Amino acid sequence: MKNTTAKRIELNDFILNTMRQCILLRPLGVEDFDEIVQTSHAVQLTDNSVLFEQGSELTDIYLLISGGVKIQRLAPNGDEKVLEIIRPGQTFAEAVLFFGGSQYPVTAVTVSPSIVVGIKAETYLKLLHTSNSLCLNLLGNLSQRLHWMVNEMDRLTLHNATFRLVDYLLSHIPVDSNERAGVSLAAPKHVIASRLSIKPETLSRTLKELSKQGLIKLEGSEIELLDIAKLRQLILL
Amino acid sequence: MKNTTAKRIELNDFILNTMRQCILLRPLGVEDFDEIVQTSHAVQLTDNSVLFEQGSELTDIYLLISGGVKIQRLAPNGDEKVLEIIRPGQTFAEAVLFFGGSQYPVTAVTVSPSIVVGIKAETYLKLLHTSNSLCLNLLGNLSQRLHWMVNEMDRLTLHNATFRLVDYLLSHIPVDSNERAGVSLAAPKHVIASRLSIKPETLSRTLKELSKQGLIKLEGSEIELLDIAKLRQLILL
Repeated sequence: MKNTTAKRIELNDFILNTMRQCILLRPLGVEDFDEIVQTSHAVQLTDNSVLFEQGSELTDIYLLISGGVKIQRLAPNGDEKVLEIIRPGQTFAEAVLFFGGSQYPVTAVTVSPSIVVGIKAETYLKLLHTSNSLCLNLLGNLSQRLHWMVNEMDRLTLHNATFRLVDYLLSHIPVDSNERAGVSLAAPKHVIASRLSIKPETLSRTLKELSKQGLIKLEGSEIELLDIAKLRQLILL
Repeated sequence: MKNTTAKRIELNDFILNTMRQCILLRPLGVEDFDEIVQTSHAVQLTDNSVLFEQGSELTDIYLLISGGVKIQRLAPNGDEKVLEIIRPGQTFAEAVLFFGGSQYPVTAVTVSPSIVVGIKAETYLKLLHTSNSLCLNLLGNLSQRLHWMVNEMDRLTLHNATFRLVDYLLSHIPVDSNERAGVSLAAPKHVIASRLSIKPETLSRTLKELSKQGLIKLEGSEIELLDIAKLRQLILL
């Protein structure tokens, strides 16, 4: 077991603000939030400190204020597999609490000097058990956040795909050319998609999107690059 | 208002399976799931059909089985702003239900021929109100999913950043060279980050990661490319 240095620190304004904004505590009313604050504590941890260990009793759920924490699980062969890296503002260990678990199913170790708030699991669970409307409010928040994430991932994937596709298309014409140019797709679309490591559906969507913006014109396996300057801009910055 | 063609279809095995696996219905016991199924209906919609309109009474929450649906809101100036594109397997309109809303705050319009299941809001809400453990189970599912998403987004962003950075580094050496080579970063890191449109932190993390993998060696603003073949592989496929 690693050496753990945990120094208790006070819940200063920055920490309290981060708590107030975190997804699990945001739906709480003033009184409930105060109750949570009174049973919470903050610790400052050095790099490589164990916050909790797999199999130990679940007493707190956590909010990372600063630094980074890796969540790992012991594999049957004794190897430690990192499942997740927690970023500031994220909570962890709450899912197992919701599912009724009484032990941590994973180990949490800091990857850099970190500040972490421990929220008494018992206090939080009591609030959820006594207020159905709090549960629903929390469900609303989580589900909104999920929608946002799905959308953001979509945007990222598409951004990524656009970058690669445009880069690929421009690689077919001279670097200094600014003229309209025709590019023949030398391979079937699924091969090109694989070459660019994007899904065929994403390739199709990206081609459609570029064509909708008037940057390219699609005609079967022929692609006309209509606005080279704008295409270059898309991948530069 | 657009022309809406909705054709009611039966809840076949594929639809029932998709319902069973969807995040909102997965935590339900057999009896509760049956009750939901009995008050649900599936419709087949043509492209550009309005499923519900902003301001109309919220009667159902929806699960998209196939096709695509855009969620849009009317801006004060009368423009329609698309907030989100729903993908198959995703539910929508549930967040506003959790928050206690009684009207749809947005309009839902198909972007391609689609099959959609409407789940009676009243039935679903009754189940949530009568079972705190269902609420908690659902919270567990949503929070697990959120953790997965945060992680996946991290991976995507890093993947994206790695692709761009390696592409940028390789652009400094001849296309056919396979020798170790030194590259001087001509600009400060934050300028290069901006040029690659990634965050400075992400640039640092990516550089560190590549160096940990033994692909590059960092010395101030000098970068030695240690394994050109592997670097090329990273961005090809």
